[in-house]
Amino acid sequence: MLHALPRMILLATTIAFGGLTGTARAADPLPSWNEGATKQAILDFVDRATSVDSPEYVPPGKRIATFDNDGTLWCEQPNYIQAEFLIARVKALAADHPEWKTQRPHAALLKGDLRDALSGGEQGFADLITSLHAGQTLEQFQELVREWFAVARHPRFQRPYTECVYQPMLELLAYLRASGFKTYIVTGGGTDFVRTVSEQIYGIPPEQVIGSSIRTKFAERSGVFEILRLPEIEFIDYGAGKPIGIEQFIGRQPRAAFGNSDGDLQMLQWTTAGANRKPPHFGLLVHHTDAEREYAYDRQSTIGTLKVALDQAAERGWTVVDMKLDWRVIFPPTAESE
Amino acid sequence: MLHALPRMILLATTIAFGGLTGTARAADPLPSWNEGATKQAILDFVDRATSVDSPEYVPPGKRIATFDNDGTLWCEQPNYIQAEFLIARVKALAADHPEWKTQRPHAALLKGDLRDALSGGEQGFADLITSLHAGQTLEQFQELVREWFAVARHPRFQRPYTECVYQPMLELLAYLRASGFKTYIVTGGGTDFVRTVSEQIYGIPPEQVIGSSIRTKFAERSGVFEILRLPEIEFIDYGAGKPIGIEQFIGRQPRAAFGNSDGDLQMLQWTTAGANRKPPHFGLLVHHTDAEREYAYDRQSTIGTLKVALDQAAERGWTVVDMKLDWRVIFPPTAESE
Repeated sequence: MLHALPRMILLATTIAFGGLTGTARAADPLPSWNEGATKQAILDFVDRATSVDSPEYVPPGKRIATFDNDGTLWCEQPNYIQAEFLIARVKALAADHPEWKTQRPHAALLKGDLRDALSGGEQGFADLITSLHAGQTLEQFQELVREWFAVARHPRFQRPYTECVYQPMLELLAYLRASGFKTYIVTGGGTDFVRTVSEQIYGIPPEQVIGSSIRTKFAERSGVFEILRLPEIEFIDYGAGKPIGIEQFIGRQPRAAFGNSDGDLQMLQWTTAGANRKPPHFGLLVHHTDAEREYAYDRQSTIGTLKVALDQAAERGWTVVDMKLDWRVIFPPTAESE
Repeated sequence: MLHALPRMILLATTIAFGGLTGTARAADPLPSWNEGATKQAILDFVDRATSVDSPEYVPPGKRIATFDNDGTLWCEQPNYIQAEFLIARVKALAADHPEWKTQRPHAALLKGDLRDALSGGEQGFADLITSLHAGQTLEQFQELVREWFAVARHPRFQRPYTECVYQPMLELLAYLRASGFKTYIVTGGGTDFVRTVSEQIYGIPPEQVIGSSIRTKFAERSGVFEILRLPEIEFIDYGAGKPIGIEQFIGRQPRAAFGNSDGDLQMLQWTTAGANRKPPHFGLLVHHTDAEREYAYDRQSTIGTLKVALDQAAERGWTVVDMKLDWRVIFPPTAESE
C-alpha cells in the first residue's frame, strides 16, 4: 500500500497539471533524438525488458547496460581526450626532462604526433605512463586530472572536455536508469582517468567504470598506508578485453551494449550473441556521420575505426545511430555560455 | 514535496500503531547483538556517518562498507567452504582420473588433507583448479556450484553451507544498507564461487563481490561467443591484494571494513589509516571465541589465523567482536527445521 502511493500521487499531479497530451509530451525520455526507427528501437527494447506483462521481462537487478566512452559518450576527435591530457602532462614536465626532446614517445607527443607516440605498442605506452605517473597515489593522479579538465578546452568546440559529451546519450543514460538499468562505462581509456569525472558528467559512480588499468602496490610510508601506481600495464579493456572485463567486474551479461568502433565489437557480440543469450538484448553503434556539427568518420579513421562492427550490424540486428539524422542536438548547452 | 510524503506517511503510521516506545523497540537494527561496547561502537559509527548535522557526515554515494567472507560472514571451520567444494569435485571426477590417486594435490584432497593439498603454492593451486574447471564457462562453473550447495551439509552443524552464515552479520549488512551504505564482499575466495550465492544469502549482487580470480578468454564456438576459464591465476584477493582489489573495483576508499583474520589486515589498515583518511572510519574484527556454539581459534589456527591484526586492533582503534559475549545467536534458523 505505502509503496503504491507516490506513484498514484505523481500520476494525479501529472493529470491535474498537464492532461494526457501534456503527459505524453513531457514524458518523452529522449527529446534530443529525432523520431524514427532508431529512437523507436530503443523505446521498444526498454518496453520489452521492463513491462511486467512482457514475455521478455527482465528483473531490475539483471538490467545491466554497458557503454563505451570515447566516441560513444564523449567526443574522441581530433584526439582522444586522455591523449590530450598526456600531452599536457609531457609539456608540463618537459623542462625537467631535456632528454624528452629527442626521445620517443615523448618527443612525438610534444610535436602532437599521437600515432607516432603510440607506435611503441603496449610497452611503449607503459613506459610513457610510467614516466608521468609511477609512484603516484590515486588521489594525486586524480587531482592532476581534475586540474587539467578545469582549464583544457576542445580545440574546435572551445568548450571544456567535460561538456564535449553527447546530449542524446546523456538522455539515454538517464532513461535507462529511470527504467531500472544499472549503467556502466566499459572503456579502453584509463579507469582512474574516467572515474575522476564520470559521476559529474554522466551520473555514473566510480565503481561502475571499467577501463584499462596499470598495476599498483600497497605500501606503508611514514605510518600511513598508500596504494602506489607501478610501471606496468595490468589490463587493456579493449576488443576482447571488454567482455572479459564485464564478466570480471559485473559477473552478469549485459542486456544492452553501446559502442561506436571495432573496439566495441566483442562487447556487442557478447551482449547479443553470447552463449545462452535470451531476449531481450540490444546492441547499438553510434555512427559518426555529421562533419558539420561534429565529425564524420568510420572505416578509414585511425581513431575510432568502425569497419568490422559496421559490417556485422545488419546481420546481428544492431541498431546503428546515424548521428546526422537521428540526433536533434549533439552537445548540451555549455555552462560557460549561460 | 513529493519526496517527503512517504516518510511522513510512514512516521504517521508508526506513531498511530506503536507509539514512540514501540517504535524505539521495533527499531533495534541489530537484535542478535547483545548490548555492550561492540554494538554501541557500530551504532555510533553509523550515526556519525549518516546524521545530516554530524560534522563527520558522509554523502550516501561515498558510504562504502567492505566485508571479508570466510570467517566474517560465513563459517570457515573445519574447512573453507570452497575447499569442501573442490574436494567434492575431485571425488566426482576421480573415477575418470586414476592418476589422481597418487598425484598431488589431488591425492591429498581425496584424503581430505587440505594443508598438504595446498602446499604447492599458487602454481599448485592453479594446476588443481585447472584440472577441474579449465575450459568451462562461468555458467557451467556456477551450475556445478549451485548443485553442490543444494546437497552439501556442514559436517558438524548438519545444515546447508548457505545457512552457515552469521545472523548478527546478516543484520549488520541489512542495517548498513538501510543506512545508505553500499555493501561489498572482499574475499580471498573465488569471485565466481561466492557470486553464485551472494545475492541469495547476503543480498549482495555479483557486481559487489570482489575475490580471487583466474584468467579467462573470449572465444567463438559454432557461431556463439563464450568466455572460457584458463589455467592461470589472475588475482589473489588476500592480504595486500584486498586494498588493491578495492581500489581497482570500487575506486573509492571504504568507510568501514570488517574481517576476522590477518588476511584482512591491510584492508583494515587501508580503511582506517590510509593516506588522506578523514573520519568517520570503522574497522572491525570478528574474534572466534565460542567453541561451544561455533569455533574458538585465532593465533595458532591454520585457517583464519588472527595474530598481527589482533595485536594492532587496540592501537588502531578497531572494534573486536567477542563472538561468545557479543552475539546472542550465531546462525539463522535453518529453513529445513521449519
